[in-house]
Amino acid sequence: MSDLRVAVLGVGVMGADHVVRLSSRISGARVTVVNDYVADKAEQLAATIPGCRAIADPLDAIADPDVDAVVLATPGPTHEKQLLACLEHTKPVMCEKPLTTDVSTALDVVKREAELSTRLIQVGFMRRFDHEYAALKALLDGDELGLPLVLHCAHRNPAVPPSFDSAMIVRDSLVHEVDVTRFLFGEEIASIQIIKPQPNPAAPRGLADPQIAIMRTTSGKHVDVELFVTTGIAYEVRTEVVAERGSAMIGMDVGLVRKGAGGTWGGQITPGFRERFGQAYDTEFQRWVDAVHRGRNTGDFTDGPSAWDGYAAAAVCEAGVESLNSGQPVDVQMVDRRTIPGA
Amino acid sequence: MSDLRVAVLGVGVMGADHVVRLSSRISGARVTVVNDYVADKAEQLAATIPGCRAIADPLDAIADPDVDAVVLATPGPTHEKQLLACLEHTKPVMCEKPLTTDVSTALDVVKREAELSTRLIQVGFMRRFDHEYAALKALLDGDELGLPLVLHCAHRNPAVPPSFDSAMIVRDSLVHEVDVTRFLFGEEIASIQIIKPQPNPAAPRGLADPQIAIMRTTSGKHVDVELFVTTGIAYEVRTEVVAERGSAMIGMDVGLVRKGAGGTWGGQITPGFRERFGQAYDTEFQRWVDAVHRGRNTGDFTDGPSAWDGYAAAAVCEAGVESLNSGQPVDVQMVDRRTIPGA
Amino acid sequence: MSDLRVAVLGVGVMGADHVVRLSSRISGARVTVVNDYVADKAEQLAATIPGCRAIADPLDAIADPDVDAVVLATPGPTHEKQLLACLEHTKPVMCEKPLTTDVSTALDVVKREAELSTRLIQVGFMRRFDHEYAALKALLDGDELGLPLVLHCAHRNPAVPPSFDSAMIVRDSLVHEVDVTRFLFGEEIASIQIIKPQPNPAAPRGLADPQIAIMRTTSGKHVDVELFVTTGIAYEVRTEVVAERGSAMIGMDVGLVRKGAGGTWGGQITPGFRERFGQAYDTEFQRWVDAVHRGRNTGDFTDGPSAWDGYAAAAVCEAGVESLNSGQPVDVQMVDRRTIPGA
Amino acid sequence: MSDLRVAVLGVGVMGADHVVRLSSRISGARVTVVNDYVADKAEQLAATIPGCRAIADPLDAIADPDVDAVVLATPGPTHEKQLLACLEHTKPVMCEKPLTTDVSTALDVVKREAELSTRLIQVGFMRRFDHEYAALKALLDGDELGLPLVLHCAHRNPAVPPSFDSAMIVRDSLVHEVDVTRFLFGEEIASIQIIKPQPNPAAPRGLADPQIAIMRTTSGKHVDVELFVTTGIAYEVRTEVVAERGSAMIGMDVGLVRKGAGGTWGGQITPGFRERFGQAYDTEFQRWVDAVHRGRNTGDFTDGPSAWDGYAAAAVCEAGVESLNSGQPVDVQMVDRRTIPGA
Repeated sequence: MSDLRVAVLGVGVMGADHVVRLSSRISGARVTVVNDYVADKAEQLAATIPGCRAIADPLDAIADPDVDAVVLATPGPTHEKQLLACLEHTKPVMCEKPLTTDVSTALDVVKREAELSTRLIQVGFMRRFDHEYAALKALLDGDELGLPLVLHCAHRNPAVPPSFDSAMIVRDSLVHEVDVTRFLFGEEIASIQIIKPQPNPAAPRGLADPQIAIMRTTSGKHVDVELFVTTGIAYEVRTEVVAERGSAMIGMDVGLVRKGAGGTWGGQITPGFRERFGQAYDTEFQRWVDAVHRGRNTGDFTDGPSAWDGYAAAAVCEAGVESLNSGQPVDVQMVDRRTIPGA
Repeated sequence: MSDLRVAVLGVGVMGADHVVRLSSRISGARVTVVNDYVADKAEQLAATIPGCRAIADPLDAIADPDVDAVVLATPGPTHEKQLLACLEHTKPVMCEKPLTTDVSTALDVVKREAELSTRLIQVGFMRRFDHEYAALKALLDGDELGLPLVLHCAHRNPAVPPSFDSAMIVRDSLVHEVDVTRFLFGEEIASIQIIKPQPNPAAPRGLADPQIAIMRTTSGKHVDVELFVTTGIAYEVRTEVVAERGSAMIGMDVGLVRKGAGGTWGGQITPGFRERFGQAYDTEFQRWVDAVHRGRNTGDFTDGPSAWDGYAAAAVCEAGVESLNSGQPVDVQMVDRRTIPGA
Repeated sequence: MSDLRVAVLGVGVMGADHVVRLSSRISGARVTVVNDYVADKAEQLAATIPGCRAIADPLDAIADPDVDAVVLATPGPTHEKQLLACLEHTKPVMCEKPLTTDVSTALDVVKREAELSTRLIQVGFMRRFDHEYAALKALLDGDELGLPLVLHCAHRNPAVPPSFDSAMIVRDSLVHEVDVTRFLFGEEIASIQIIKPQPNPAAPRGLADPQIAIMRTTSGKHVDVELFVTTGIAYEVRTEVVAERGSAMIGMDVGLVRKGAGGTWGGQITPGFRERFGQAYDTEFQRWVDAVHRGRNTGDFTDGPSAWDGYAAAAVCEAGVESLNSGQPVDVQMVDRRTIPGA
Repeated sequence: MSDLRVAVLGVGVMGADHVVRLSSRISGARVTVVNDYVADKAEQLAATIPGCRAIADPLDAIADPDVDAVVLATPGPTHEKQLLACLEHTKPVMCEKPLTTDVSTALDVVKREAELSTRLIQVGFMRRFDHEYAALKALLDGDELGLPLVLHCAHRNPAVPPSFDSAMIVRDSLVHEVDVTRFLFGEEIASIQIIKPQPNPAAPRGLADPQIAIMRTTSGKHVDVELFVTTGIAYEVRTEVVAERGSAMIGMDVGLVRKGAGGTWGGQITPGFRERFGQAYDTEFQRWVDAVHRGRNTGDFTDGPSAWDGYAAAAVCEAGVESLNSGQPVDVQMVDRRTIPGA
């Protein structure tokens, strides 16, 4: 199966991240085209990626025969036109939020895609792929908690750029909790109220921060969200579901914690080595593959424990087995590493 | 840069995992050859991987011109011969532990690699790549904790296969803590003692389980390891370093927890969205790329939030901004999804 | 200093608890009079307390010359009259909430006490004396967190009596968070809104449960309270303050957890043995004093570790010191306990 | 029941604490005699306690007819003589550890008490009364965990006095874990080994710190204890039992945490208001009783929420009930506190 050829439109912070992601961590895809309204930035980035070139016009990039699929990391106001071009060329597109910047154009895009007999547009609400949110969703979809009733969320940023205004707290921050609510509860939001408490003295003058969003879903579930983007602390995204037979919370830096039957609180111990060390194996192998690629130049085809490390472990375990049998302390016998130049 | 062509030798549980890993999650590599002493198993696996074939003899697989690098997941007793073949053909090799099954052959391998002017052998101590161990290592390498003094470890498995004997607890379980000790402290282990307490009534008759390993490093640091492989609970791997100016613990299912200056305990809040949601972005993109590949057959090029989800978020945020301005609850206006067939 | 002679009015669940508390755990007080509108209940309880008698009329009990101070655990509607009687007789009174059952009579009581040149009435908002709330208050009164901005509370009961109605969730449950808010923030509450989400299917028909209270203080601080009294789980009372320079949370069964400078989360390690074991010392001594009182009858003047336990500890420590010097394991030498009848 | 009249011998830090404890927090006892080898210290302390006097000779204090029971907080070497005097006068005695300073005199004391047909001596191993140790003991005595197998302990002090030597780490620190082991497992300790790792650079020269104690009980259970008395951090006393069907840990500043069936970790949510706020009620009442005693002088018979606080709560709840009915925000109506002088 040949690699998917991807065009990334918009290579600011987020788009450039996606270029690195697709080039070095994602299997089965490569970036063949980049585009940015600052043409130089795209040119420079393209030069660092083998087989990638910059195309100045975003619509040309979408239409290019060298492009199988598109990532949109461009500013929101350009999304409508670019999405419609993707639909026209039947190119799958991953679109960073927002879909478009207003409701009517968003609805237009929905309708245009619906007219095709295929789904081409995915929106970048990435929290659905976070393992904690996925675990919370799985918990809600099971029987354990019963009917969900209330959702408490906190969304805290240490700081925001100077251009961030009060409405962006709704459009750029709350939007994630809007999708989280819809994802977890599987229903639409019927009403919303934004409360503006006494503002944080450390917030820029004029910024209504924190804000509290109170939402109600179609079936009457309550959702509250603390939005606080000038905390000065760190990135805290917390979500708690209170349900008929228990509650569960994620985002406390301690995994998913649930409270439930028997009056207990706690989490799940990682059940096996795959869950505990799967990330480690992936990282190990990716770094090893990268090191082998580099090794043609460096003469070192490793990036991790060496043969010496394997030898040392063997020496200790051999002494350990001897102690297991004798019950006595055993000295570990090893050659002096300096006697083996190159080891 | 063309993909690294990898031969995976030994496709039991672990080797088959590595084939999937290299084929579907690792960028820049693909599996071209698989081998197993059960030839059928290798044939069947090869048939599922595009561009991959089975080779019956492991040494032929290593020598094959279609192979740039080798993964050894074969039984330990075959490692020596296979590693030497890799060295002979100058092929980089990722070798699952143990390097070899006894100290003298392990030392031979070290010496043979040292005679070449290149590093080709990496040993699969994957814990070094786990983010918690990496964070603990970084903490020890910094100034905060001062000189490390004591290491407490627990290594608990819910169960082991019937063939598992008392010595395997040392060779297959303790071996990881041996490498962890050497990795964290950067020094060799000088002596070891295995204590056999009253055995677990639930352990198979004759298995000395739990065991306690007491180790001493060359500079006199103390290490103790509880090895308990029949707990019936889950997979618990815990490591605590006690140092001159504080202590830190990982593996409690709550991230790295440190105790230190000011008499406080706690952890680090994830500092930003990259640390918090990096995994989610990677998963999102890998699943999207896979969905686009599949889409040629299914007509659905997405695996995540749809255009409708983007529209719904826009509708709620628009109402939210209205409430931000008015201070009043605002009903969310959305079209009925059923009026747009295909949405 | 002679013991304070206390009358306890109302000896239902709560009042009876207070009688035990004053009789057996509180130094410097004893219960001389009990009263209940069910006269038999008071008579029976009085019979179990040395020097205590029942008085049928609550106002007679207040006026009794044998009474220095009064505890009111009577139903709310009787409080007004009883409080005024205490003021008239200048008797200090600890009044369980509510002060009175409506605002105008409560204000009357405030005014009557204010006319005296003394403070006689204390209201039983006991959370102010909880060590976690006290620690949270101390944290807020210090400089670390800066200006408090938002208060999130959850108040969850496993179940309520059949007579509990929707308004009692406000009057009997929320009332505690009302006092907590005023205690922590030191300001009054200016407005309140109660939100009724989709009710818990497990709640009695007609009970609006859960409820969400949204309050705003005079300076504009936001307070939200989840009130949920039919969780079926346990007693969960949680309070989180979000402030200018950090946040702190209590009631998670893990002590006070704060998030703050440096992007860290965590708590305080108990600084010394007094903080860690103060409760143990108090319990140890109370139980010893009680055992000595009982010993006149039982012949056993202890309720804890015996002389044998002291001997055994000495034997182990002596062996430990020998091992400290020799570095070798040392067998502990002890006589056979059965050779000392009575030990 | 008249108060127990207690003599406290030795009024250094610990003894003086016990005098305060018995005088102000323990019901049913009072201190009538104090003694110290520094006579002035005893005199000065006696002067602050109503009805208490100093007696210069400890044996006279024990014999005094005004003394029902004795607390020994004197130096260890004096214990033997004082304990024998208590036995001779048939006076119950609470003896701070050690019972005596060597094994043979400890055994003598055991034998002398055993010859009487009564138990008079209790040893001050106060951890048995700590609620976490009590919860751990209760857990072990139940069926849930099955046979206990291994005990891991850590005993960390921030600092020790200059006079503290290596043997005192065994005699004064480890002694507590010795008793904890015997208490939790209900069996004697058969052997002990002390390991001296590389010492903490911050420890006084010559002090072997940290130390590791390895103990084995009569049935073969393994116990290890990290003793580290110069951590510079705080007071950390941690105990973990690993058993046949799960494990449990206390002393992590987060309550008792267990790991067990179903592969879960966590703790118990406080089941009800008595468990959650029992301490708060006790503190509230003790402080109120003390305030009423003081009120005769101060004119303020309260130490907590006032009538105004009760009024304010009533006003908010009344508005809350109105909002419950209307669903709308309701302004809270309160009089201006300044209009009621004295409120």
